[in-house]
Amino acid sequence: MQRLTVTDPGFEAAFTRLVDGRRESDIEVRQDVADIIARVRAKGDAALAEYTARFDKHRLVDDSDWRIAPEDCRAAYEALTPDLRDALDLAAKRIEAYHREQLPADRDTVDEAGVRLGARWLPVDAAGLYVPGGRAAYPSSLLMNAIPAKVAGVERLVVVTPTRAGETNPLVLAAAHVAGVDEVWRIGGAQAIAALAHGTERIARVDVVTGPGNAWVAEAKRQLYGVVGIDMVAGPSEILVIADADNDPDWIAADLLSQAEHDPTSQSILISDDAAFANQVEDRIDTQSAMLATRTTAQASWRDNGVMIVVESLDQAVPLANRLAAEHVELAVADPEALFAGLRHAGSVFLGRHTPEAVGDYVAGPNHVLPTGRRARFSSGLSVLDFMKRTSFISLDPAALAAIGPAAVALAEAEGLPAHAQSVAMRLK
Amino acid sequence: MQRLTVTDPGFEAAFTRLVDGRRESDIEVRQDVADIIARVRAKGDAALAEYTARFDKHRLVDDSDWRIAPEDCRAAYEALTPDLRDALDLAAKRIEAYHREQLPADRDTVDEAGVRLGARWLPVDAAGLYVPGGRAAYPSSLLMNAIPAKVAGVERLVVVTPTRAGETNPLVLAAAHVAGVDEVWRIGGAQAIAALAHGTERIARVDVVTGPGNAWVAEAKRQLYGVVGIDMVAGPSEILVIADADNDPDWIAADLLSQAEHDPTSQSILISDDAAFANQVEDRIDTQSAMLATRTTAQASWRDNGVMIVVESLDQAVPLANRLAAEHVELAVADPEALFAGLRHAGSVFLGRHTPEAVGDYVAGPNHVLPTGRRARFSSGLSVLDFMKRTSFISLDPAALAAIGPAAVALAEAEGLPAHAQSVAMRLK
Repeated sequence: MQRLTVTDPGFEAAFTRLVDGRRESDIEVRQDVADIIARVRAKGDAALAEYTARFDKHRLVDDSDWRIAPEDCRAAYEALTPDLRDALDLAAKRIEAYHREQLPADRDTVDEAGVRLGARWLPVDAAGLYVPGGRAAYPSSLLMNAIPAKVAGVERLVVVTPTRAGETNPLVLAAAHVAGVDEVWRIGGAQAIAALAHGTERIARVDVVTGPGNAWVAEAKRQLYGVVGIDMVAGPSEILVIADADNDPDWIAADLLSQAEHDPTSQSILISDDAAFANQVEDRIDTQSAMLATRTTAQASWRDNGVMIVVESLDQAVPLANRLAAEHVELAVADPEALFAGLRHAGSVFLGRHTPEAVGDYVAGPNHVLPTGRRARFSSGLSVLDFMKRTSFISLDPAALAAIGPAAVALAEAEGLPAHAQSVAMRLK
Repeated sequence: MQRLTVTDPGFEAAFTRLVDGRRESDIEVRQDVADIIARVRAKGDAALAEYTARFDKHRLVDDSDWRIAPEDCRAAYEALTPDLRDALDLAAKRIEAYHREQLPADRDTVDEAGVRLGARWLPVDAAGLYVPGGRAAYPSSLLMNAIPAKVAGVERLVVVTPTRAGETNPLVLAAAHVAGVDEVWRIGGAQAIAALAHGTERIARVDVVTGPGNAWVAEAKRQLYGVVGIDMVAGPSEILVIADADNDPDWIAADLLSQAEHDPTSQSILISDDAAFANQVEDRIDTQSAMLATRTTAQASWRDNGVMIVVESLDQAVPLANRLAAEHVELAVADPEALFAGLRHAGSVFLGRHTPEAVGDYVAGPNHVLPTGRRARFSSGLSVLDFMKRTSFISLDPAALAAIGPAAVALAEAEGLPAHAQSVAMRLK
């Protein structure tokens, strides 16, 4: 854990290092992934079977090896405890309600020159969602990816997920049932992304691929960007908590640990205007983390990537937060509005002392797929727009063309594009 | 030029080849570009000077070698003929008006559980626009990239453009003046994209990079995607014209040539329900193209990539158009609405006989930066949203947390994330 104090002479240099620091692993996967994509394109299902046997120890032979049937997803849902079923239903309902309000409006108007101009939004035909196996197999992520696609109106929703040694995750299957997923394929890694983008004999290609994954999955999405649409390049997760001394240090410690327990590369940062409070939080982190089932991860993350920054007043926190452009920002103060007004770059903001970040991970409604690694400077959380596209349209009658056509002719000629000019000029005669 | 008739036995196979065909060049630039990016990161301005001397034959020494001053842009604008100045002004005014309507609305509501949920849109701090040198140095592209950024509210707008042997394009400078560009740097290629993304001593980094370019520029944008936001992966341009026999074949020929004259890799496709009309269009293309100053390019494009498809009735054109998902679609028929209703995938649609695609390139208002190469299946034209990002926010009071918190606790526990559960549970006590 690193401690910085804004009045220290070395603060600016240390903070700049923090902002510019990368926590991404430098594993060189580019060539591996290129090879896997080429092989899936060339050999289709045979390549998928080969990679799945090798990497996931799962043999793809019969239909049931390849796919998990909708009835199995329904059965997994029905086998949940009532509490968990209700929780999943509540989460789905709230996520759907929030995302429904994101549906964009079409445009269709005629301006004073008589030119009809518009824009029409439509969903993509098919979307593919990657659901990791192992530690990061979160049903909540499935809901957060699938529900915006459903709300957008996507007709075909495909999940790919590795089932190591054949083992499935009942909670993920239950979430697939709740979200109305159409197909669940038991494949993972770069080969699954390649199958979604290019299609194979069994798996029809999709138009957009979203969802989290390891370095191979992320690199496959990057390489296939343009063949399909993708959500974003995701890196390790982070939280920034801005808290004054009137908070319960136990609450703030838990919030910081909730990020730290995700992954050793996760980053938790506290900014406080009270050094004594920061010390209390640090103590509570030590105490709480020792009791967590996830302590190995949480302690490694906090030790290697945790940061505490002491400022003179919380006004100083806002420009620092903007430079960090964190995925999650908690404003644990009495008047969060004042700080929020100055915050320009953040994935999602949690206002006030009773809004722990974890409610946003599950049930609040906004998407938990958010820009990481300072990308909140230029990108947004997942939304229905990631599963839709806009077609603009233009309609002119002879009068409208007479009004604006001559300017098009002049510009086309100036750009040295005579056929452009003629296509307009001929219609002006 | 390829001619397909829907009733031919080989039609489906030939059409599938057309849909799956790639016109992108296969130049292997990946390693070159990776080297250039690494060198610009390591050496900054010195690397830019070195590459610019080598590739653009332009020496970067004094400030005026590096930058084109705002006064020079203003002077270029004032030196234009009044006609051209008016045309540029009209284009800018109409583009601005169309894009202003794209500004997204913020959200801030409290739902029945007492949970306050919202989303706030803000512009990125700085945007970089690539403007190619040479043949493709189009002032209209500068307007189409810069104006949405300005409308979005971007504070700092940076243009990079190669000035081969020191030569500048007055029309591009004039457009930079009209669009209110803040900085114009005389650099190009992958090195310019690297400078925008990572910053150098002279050039402060930006948050989003847009604009067309050659294979090196496109690959640099792809490699730096995630370090900065980018607009899209652009490929060769295309037009699909759906026309019945009641059109003037000269008009349709000019429309097809207006695409063909851009680049030998451009593609012009005609779908008609009348074989005799298609023959007339072909004749007119031969006659018109021979007289164009751009004939070398236009004839090569039409010869290598041009397609004429004869269908039995125009209803058959719609599913074919959806599979092609073309950048530009003209519906040159008496009732374009009927066809437009079934069109799902297209970048921009031009309705009726008096709406040549070229009006959309310059003055109609919608953006002319559009998805190419079938990417209209999943992506949209450039808009103000490419220069903005959305921050979601959540605020709970104790009662709201009591209403939805227990479900978050149940899901966090089921996912094996105890610190997530505790951060909520502690506040429920």
